[in-house]
Amino acid sequence: MPVTVVGSIAFDSVRTPFGERTRMLGGAATHFALAASFFDDVRVVGPVGEDFGEAELEVLRRRGVETSDIERVPGGETFFWAGEYGWDLGTRETLETRLGVFAQFEPKLSAGARESDVLFLANIQPDLQRAVRAQCTGARFTALDSMNLWIETARDSLVETIATVDCLVLNDGELRQLTGRPGLLGAAREVFSWGPPGPSVVIAKQGEYGAAMITADSYFSLPAFPLETVVDPTGAGDTFAGGFIGYIAAAGAEAIDEELLRRAMAYGTALASFNVEEFGTERVARLTGAEIAARVRELERVTHFRDAPIELRG
Amino acid sequence: MPVTVVGSIAFDSVRTPFGERTRMLGGAATHFALAASFFDDVRVVGPVGEDFGEAELEVLRRRGVETSDIERVPGGETFFWAGEYGWDLGTRETLETRLGVFAQFEPKLSAGARESDVLFLANIQPDLQRAVRAQCTGARFTALDSMNLWIETARDSLVETIATVDCLVLNDGELRQLTGRPGLLGAAREVFSWGPPGPSVVIAKQGEYGAAMITADSYFSLPAFPLETVVDPTGAGDTFAGGFIGYIAAAGAEAIDEELLRRAMAYGTALASFNVEEFGTERVARLTGAEIAARVRELERVTHFRDAPIELRG
Repeated sequence: MPVTVVGSIAFDSVRTPFGERTRMLGGAATHFALAASFFDDVRVVGPVGEDFGEAELEVLRRRGVETSDIERVPGGETFFWAGEYGWDLGTRETLETRLGVFAQFEPKLSAGARESDVLFLANIQPDLQRAVRAQCTGARFTALDSMNLWIETARDSLVETIATVDCLVLNDGELRQLTGRPGLLGAAREVFSWGPPGPSVVIAKQGEYGAAMITADSYFSLPAFPLETVVDPTGAGDTFAGGFIGYIAAAGAEAIDEELLRRAMAYGTALASFNVEEFGTERVARLTGAEIAARVRELERVTHFRDAPIELRG
Repeated sequence: MPVTVVGSIAFDSVRTPFGERTRMLGGAATHFALAASFFDDVRVVGPVGEDFGEAELEVLRRRGVETSDIERVPGGETFFWAGEYGWDLGTRETLETRLGVFAQFEPKLSAGARESDVLFLANIQPDLQRAVRAQCTGARFTALDSMNLWIETARDSLVETIATVDCLVLNDGELRQLTGRPGLLGAAREVFSWGPPGPSVVIAKQGEYGAAMITADSYFSLPAFPLETVVDPTGAGDTFAGGFIGYIAAAGAEAIDEELLRRAMAYGTALASFNVEEFGTERVARLTGAEIAARVRELERVTHFRDAPIELRG
């Protein structure tokens, strides 16, 4: 099923203990689209400035991503983010954010984008997310990501928007912040109550620890793929979402059941693990399907155990 | 195989968002011993003060723990710790620590303790850990835990002590601090180089996220058991270690291979999940083997996925 993603297309300047890059291609929609492109047709919706060139578009097109809905704003500047990570990449400081063309973004979707079966609302202002969601009346699976900024400044709108999608993808700390519930199970239950219809799946992203998925009657937890070296975590969450939602899209008419969602988590996790091994989009841009498949198999091995009977005392 | 644990037996005063307890039974050796008691014979070595009573010893004895090596120091005061947890239990502040009888502790092991096949050196000063290790010449499996205090004040001694055990159990942040390596795989490899003989297993405890196990040629990661409510995380790591090492002890003459270690991780994880559901030792003290077994089975369910062929693009 074709996938539409709405969100930021950006230039990122990133410094980590392993080096730095200035004004490299980034943004949530970019990372998501590259990951999802391994599974199905993907269309990116979002604005860029006059400083955004053919070379950047070509990174997406080479992966077959449809870029005709990327709007180039005359005289505008592309969204820009600069950040620096600490020695173990566990902490991140934002050095600069310039909204640029995103400040005036009013999403008007093309017929092609509106008709996508699968929709991902990457992290943008929740009113905008809801406006996009309203245009995709026929979508069969919809998901959204958000962040602490919107929880703090536009919570009511965010809650209203979450009620319109099937799946909420959020960092676990932000899920706690959003719901005021300290535990993931209670937090997810709170989100499920935001309907009707309201989400039926909550994904808590846990950074280097992996991700957990909660539905009304199930729980699944998957660690991150073990890596020798992490170079740049930027975009890991969106790359995860691209793999997760891409897998669901590729399943097509198949029922979206627990087994399918768990496999989707594994593909998202594998994609994210490649993303962080190099700066920005460098690694995923030259990734192959065989490499993804090998890592999913390895993920199955490093998480597998089998219980055996043992006599317990008491 | 009988297990000996050397470490703190304490009174803990704990405040969490769910309530508080003053001077309840605690300490690393206590939590470890209660957990390990479900698997094999357990003997606790450590000092207590005159303020330590029969009621406290009885909590251990009811679980069959051998307490004859607990030394009551005349006029002494039992180790005391007071702490407070933040709203989501993710942060902890130590309000008070009084070493009491631990300040003068010089472990002299009884014949019974020295002859244990399995030895756990809970978090105490590394010179003391090494002195105990040297007395247990015939131990078949030895493990130790430590903390940031000793990494900062006695690193050389700690490294020398780690080189004498089979298994290092440490919080993941402390493993990074100890080795100066940002990634778990690199950190574990550094620890493996501290021989001969040196450890062959490194466990990185990850708090609410679970734990990872690294050996020379394998990696295994297990999330924490999903809980509705966490009341008091104190002692979770030692309870995990008690379940993990208790399981290995119970396997007896069986080879300690990867499959066995993974199951041991699952039992440790299950035990820890009970520990945090109530204050101090309250929950584990009345736990049953059937409850543990059910939670291990559930842990297998919530971590399991199976890959299925999918056509990837590129």
